[in-house]
Amino acid sequence: MIKDWFYDKLKENIGELRYEHSLRVMEKSVELAKIYNVSVEKAAVAGLLHDCGKLKGGINLLKLAEDFDIILDSMTKNNHELIHSVLGAAIAEKEYGIVDEDVLNAIRFHTTGRENMSKLEKIVYIADMIEPGRSFEGVDDIRKLALVDLDKALILSIDNTLKFVIEKRKLIHLDSVKARNQLLIQKSME
Amino acid sequence: MIKDWFYDKLKENIGELRYEHSLRVMEKSVELAKIYNVSVEKAAVAGLLHDCGKLKGGINLLKLAEDFDIILDSMTKNNHELIHSVLGAAIAEKEYGIVDEDVLNAIRFHTTGRENMSKLEKIVYIADMIEPGRSFEGVDDIRKLALVDLDKALILSIDNTLKFVIEKRKLIHLDSVKARNQLLIQKSME
Repeated sequence: MIKDWFYDKLKENIGELRYEHSLRVMEKSVELAKIYNVSVEKAAVAGLLHDCGKLKGGINLLKLAEDFDIILDSMTKNNHELIHSVLGAAIAEKEYGIVDEDVLNAIRFHTTGRENMSKLEKIVYIADMIEPGRSFEGVDDIRKLALVDLDKALILSIDNTLKFVIEKRKLIHLDSVKARNQLLIQKSME
Repeated sequence: MIKDWFYDKLKENIGELRYEHSLRVMEKSVELAKIYNVSVEKAAVAGLLHDCGKLKGGINLLKLAEDFDIILDSMTKNNHELIHSVLGAAIAEKEYGIVDEDVLNAIRFHTTGRENMSKLEKIVYIADMIEPGRSFEGVDDIRKLALVDLDKALILSIDNTLKFVIEKRKLIHLDSVKARNQLLIQKSME
């Protein structure tokens, strides 16, 4: 699924630092895919391309999203952090030729999460949070948990996102809260 | 609006400690009502009765809510903390004879908040958070802010609730997030 030219194009589009982060997310996604019996190929490409919408050089993501005929909800429209995921799914499809819906969704929802996430979506969300370059209080707990319980690791990952967003006084996407609530309810019934 | 017998009935129903907390919330609500030009009488009764649904003695709040023909959303149904507010509004109406919708809503939404809160609803939510018996990191900041900017104090109060709920691994009510998002958007446009 990954073509050789993906690497050069991605580095050119998102810059060296984000590219290196993407490689680490790819590796971590592959590691988790093996544990949870998910296609390694899909995990690799979704991990590699998850930030392909974070275009460098001051490009107007909102304008670009409009050019791609992407309909954004009002919250996403006002949040650079959220636009890049939705835009990324469109770029992965149109510029990298990705057609697998699960891969595209893993890119689209890697920032907010959502209800009923697939295993691949969960893996990329978590891998993005715990790749070796990340450091925040509690990250090692999530790293360990990710190897044994994907859903618990996802709850902790979402919690981390929520705490970050609260501290930064940014809007909280309802999809993140819905994802977390659903996981907590499922866990409480196990 | 407050009848003399409210005090004895409330103390009897919710217990000494919660009763004393209620008196402090009443006082704080009155203080804020004066600052923000809200009816002192409404603030007093809403503050006093805000926890009138927290019945002591192991009463089944869910069962009682059903007896009152209260329709609970699925999240509230599973959360004792949330039931007491909705139940409290029904008790305030049926047992204390409160008819003022704004007072009833201040009781009903003092735990979750919601979009488009009235000034009275904001006051009771905040008063409950900052009455002198409360101590948590940052409470003094909210106390000071409450005297000069009701909405900013409310955002911080909701943030505190969300952080608490996240730490406790409890479900986050979407109404709290919607309330916070709306306030942040309004503040950003001022």
